[in-house]
Amino acid sequence: MLKNPATKYRSFAPINLSDRTWPNQIITHPPIWLSTDLRDGNQALIEPMNVQRKLNLFNLLVSVGFKEIEVAFPSASQTDFDFVRHLIEQQLIPDDVTIQVLTQAREDLIRRTFAALRGAKRAIVHLYNATSPVFRRTVFGLDRQGTINLAVSAAKLFTELAAEQPDTQWQFQYSPETFTATELDFAKEICDAVLDVWQPTPQHKAIINLPATVEVATPNIFADQVEWMHRNLARRDSVVLSVHTHNDRGCGVAAAELAQMAGADRVEGCLFGNGERTGNVDLVTLALNLYTQGIHPGLDFSNINEVARIIEDCTQLPIHPRHPYVGDLVFTAFSGSHQDAIKKGFAVQKPDAIWEVPYLPLDPADVGRTYESVVRVNSQSGKGGITFLLERDYDLVLPRRLQIELSQIVQRVMDATGKELSSQNLWQLFEQEYLQISTPLKFITHQLSETEYASGVYNLTAKLQLHEKIIAVYGTGNGPIDAFVNALGLGVRIHHYEERSRNSGSSADAIACIEIAGDLIPGSLHGVGIHPNIVTASLLAILSAVNRAWQSMDAEAQAKFFSQLQAN
Amino acid sequence: MLKNPATKYRSFAPINLSDRTWPNQIITHPPIWLSTDLRDGNQALIEPMNVQRKLNLFNLLVSVGFKEIEVAFPSASQTDFDFVRHLIEQQLIPDDVTIQVLTQAREDLIRRTFAALRGAKRAIVHLYNATSPVFRRTVFGLDRQGTINLAVSAAKLFTELAAEQPDTQWQFQYSPETFTATELDFAKEICDAVLDVWQPTPQHKAIINLPATVEVATPNIFADQVEWMHRNLARRDSVVLSVHTHNDRGCGVAAAELAQMAGADRVEGCLFGNGERTGNVDLVTLALNLYTQGIHPGLDFSNINEVARIIEDCTQLPIHPRHPYVGDLVFTAFSGSHQDAIKKGFAVQKPDAIWEVPYLPLDPADVGRTYESVVRVNSQSGKGGITFLLERDYDLVLPRRLQIELSQIVQRVMDATGKELSSQNLWQLFEQEYLQISTPLKFITHQLSETEYASGVYNLTAKLQLHEKIIAVYGTGNGPIDAFVNALGLGVRIHHYEERSRNSGSSADAIACIEIAGDLIPGSLHGVGIHPNIVTASLLAILSAVNRAWQSMDAEAQAKFFSQLQAN
Repeated sequence: MLKNPATKYRSFAPINLSDRTWPNQIITHPPIWLSTDLRDGNQALIEPMNVQRKLNLFNLLVSVGFKEIEVAFPSASQTDFDFVRHLIEQQLIPDDVTIQVLTQAREDLIRRTFAALRGAKRAIVHLYNATSPVFRRTVFGLDRQGTINLAVSAAKLFTELAAEQPDTQWQFQYSPETFTATELDFAKEICDAVLDVWQPTPQHKAIINLPATVEVATPNIFADQVEWMHRNLARRDSVVLSVHTHNDRGCGVAAAELAQMAGADRVEGCLFGNGERTGNVDLVTLALNLYTQGIHPGLDFSNINEVARIIEDCTQLPIHPRHPYVGDLVFTAFSGSHQDAIKKGFAVQKPDAIWEVPYLPLDPADVGRTYESVVRVNSQSGKGGITFLLERDYDLVLPRRLQIELSQIVQRVMDATGKELSSQNLWQLFEQEYLQISTPLKFITHQLSETEYASGVYNLTAKLQLHEKIIAVYGTGNGPIDAFVNALGLGVRIHHYEERSRNSGSSADAIACIEIAGDLIPGSLHGVGIHPNIVTASLLAILSAVNRAWQSMDAEAQAKFFSQLQAN
Repeated sequence: MLKNPATKYRSFAPINLSDRTWPNQIITHPPIWLSTDLRDGNQALIEPMNVQRKLNLFNLLVSVGFKEIEVAFPSASQTDFDFVRHLIEQQLIPDDVTIQVLTQAREDLIRRTFAALRGAKRAIVHLYNATSPVFRRTVFGLDRQGTINLAVSAAKLFTELAAEQPDTQWQFQYSPETFTATELDFAKEICDAVLDVWQPTPQHKAIINLPATVEVATPNIFADQVEWMHRNLARRDSVVLSVHTHNDRGCGVAAAELAQMAGADRVEGCLFGNGERTGNVDLVTLALNLYTQGIHPGLDFSNINEVARIIEDCTQLPIHPRHPYVGDLVFTAFSGSHQDAIKKGFAVQKPDAIWEVPYLPLDPADVGRTYESVVRVNSQSGKGGITFLLERDYDLVLPRRLQIELSQIVQRVMDATGKELSSQNLWQLFEQEYLQISTPLKFITHQLSETEYASGVYNLTAKLQLHEKIIAVYGTGNGPIDAFVNALGLGVRIHHYEERSRNSGSSADAIACIEIAGDLIPGSLHGVGIHPNIVTASLLAILSAVNRAWQSMDAEAQAKFFSQLQAN
């Protein structure tokens, strides 16, 4: 039984900013975006990213259009320190991108932070200390003045160390951590004290970042707090006012939006809301919320699936199927009345007119997605749908996006025949579409070897039939799938891979499901392989996907696609 | 490249409610809750629930404390119609619970809806038609008056049909669907017209439900819309003002909270935010947001993991690891400074005092969870953590909650020895904890048969060693795992099950990971089995979990636990 909370928790005291102006404001331009995927996002993973994943993510962030990227907490681990060095020494930071790093207010950590940045063209150095009463009392044992002294000493050291590296263009950032739980007058006092040290100007601003380290109240209260700071900070014209919201109460996006109305110029967050506990605010949702209001966010999510798959690979966390703008199910309609309204909407929607299709707040095509209407093969009989029948009768468990893809194929057959489908019909359709497809490439045999024990490098040779011709392909990779994709050389990327055992009668098979994307492939698409040998099953799945992709192309694209084939 | 949105999308026109009062309000009591998990939630699933899952979910909703439950859209499918009949005829609805059903404004559908409710003690009948300009123009081809006529005719039919079934206590609900995109004056006009038909009184109120069918603007604008309706509806004292928010812009929770400040009395939504596209508002987050403000929500989520696992089973959708209050990672701290602050916070937190532990907005114990600090076994060397090492060197891929559980075990060893662990050390620890545990129950052999081909009923006999004694257990179920759990009869429930193939050298094994819960088991806990036969692997996993549970109990609980063993 849930306890009586009145004795254990208390209501957050409101700000009583009765002359607030933010509820009358409208957001008219994007904020300055700061991605902290590589810092706040990374430190909240069960398995922090290795250097390769960090580089993949950094490159993704750059390609999406981020100009400010928090890349590390260099004094916290050697990995983070080395990553900053790697970016600088290998000259991987584009001229229009500024890296940011975080440090606590401790001398040794600050010195190590500046050491990590040696040789950087430009950098934001981000100082923080916690300022709320609980932290002052319980964690640090400091009073208000002691807490200010800590921040001010650190700020002075920033100025000194920056002067020693004059070739770098420095910008300083200060965060009163746990801002939302800090008394407002004290938050102002400590920020003003730090700014007194840094002496920012309107031409060379400092960043004051207000973190909802833990979300503690409804988002309107956060907006009141931000507006109060916006109106009361001493050197407002020399400050970039930034917010950093978390999602403990599920309102991280709302808090960041209302904060912009309240005067914030900049937002820190992560793609799809990665970060400590419930995550940082999701920058993708914020950006596309602007987009659907007619405002270009300055970030490019026109191929959102590609971004999603890279993030899932880097974080090893799934994106929820109902996540705004990107989840597998968000452009999917199941109910007949929704499908009907959407159909009518598409019919009258003119290409150059304002977007007005019912139930779709965004044209899926704008983010590289498609609208999917999912049928129930047996809706009227109430006996369950495609997924249920194939699992019950054929022990076939398919990944969600493959389920949706298959439902489109089933719908086309049902629309053409006007009939309901039995589970045997469904299985035949599935076999035909995914398993029996062997044009133009047919699998014959393969050989796999690991170059050295546990080295993680695999060599794979496969013999295939291309139309009438027998060919051999050879590749290396970090596993059989990677090696085979490299062997084919078709410019194919693996978006998702799933393999599981399947019992059909007495024998056990492995079923491999693979989702691929590529420059010549619109969107993404699946292939399936079933075989007692799990490696063979995955190679079959890749060929199934490649053949399906080829068959969906026009003649010109087909020729171009296979011109890439690295056959011997 | 993302297109220029200015030509395709437009900014939502604000309400300009300059005398709004909601930003000064504080929520002081819970709303009336309406769960639409069985209706809006169910219709948005790839695989809608079967009757058994619907019943499981209905019973869960009742046990959590919902008094209003939308159970079906009876005129939309035979399954839904039959489910309502089943609830009524089998008398499964507690006296203090009111079921709600939805219908469109069409005569045949309304008649069928009332037919479904025959014999109900109490029911809310929920009428809707879409009212926004796009729907009037594109979907229905009706003007304003035509749209009002549609609603009014339907409302009249409600009154007539209700009079024919006088033994039922009726309450009527009207939703101007697509309210957020409807002109406010027209929304008022159509609601007033429907209320004129129903003639509600302060003693017998009607429900006016304002759906953000699609979330189209920042949540403050929704609050303005709700406050305007709250102030302008003709019969406000005879109306329960309800909201039904969706999450298209990621602000469903915020919109529902600000709406309550703006005058809403009631909130419709789903547990963990299931529902069309991005989902309905998450009622669990709303309820626990109240709880952390010292307000009892009137819903009981003191065993949130159990609720989560039932919902995952019913919807076949995962709950995101960062979902507020329930995600696998939300009570987990990875960073050293967070762990340190939390440790200091726990040290000074008195049992009866206001909760003030840093970084934890809620005491995990209040929802049946525990705080977990996850260590990096090799944080300093930057070589990656437990998960990485076990996967790379032992091809061991573990489910997320098992990873977290294992990390606690590793941490205890590291705290005791003060040493970093090699991947071989980790594997030994894992083997010892999960694979070699065979006290008190040890697996000897099993026999499995399906009673009839594809009947879905399995018989399982297993021979086990209990301490020194050989015993046999027998059970039936919908699969080997279910049959074995029934055979043991220990009151154990399966929370999660995962099985995958694993290559160790030349041979392929299956690894089964199982998470169990039970009345005698605090929280939940995992077991693992590895075996070439996938069925054997899963039986071993169950015994591993059961043995681990037993070993964690005191003598009294141990005796009680095994007194339930149905051995022959």
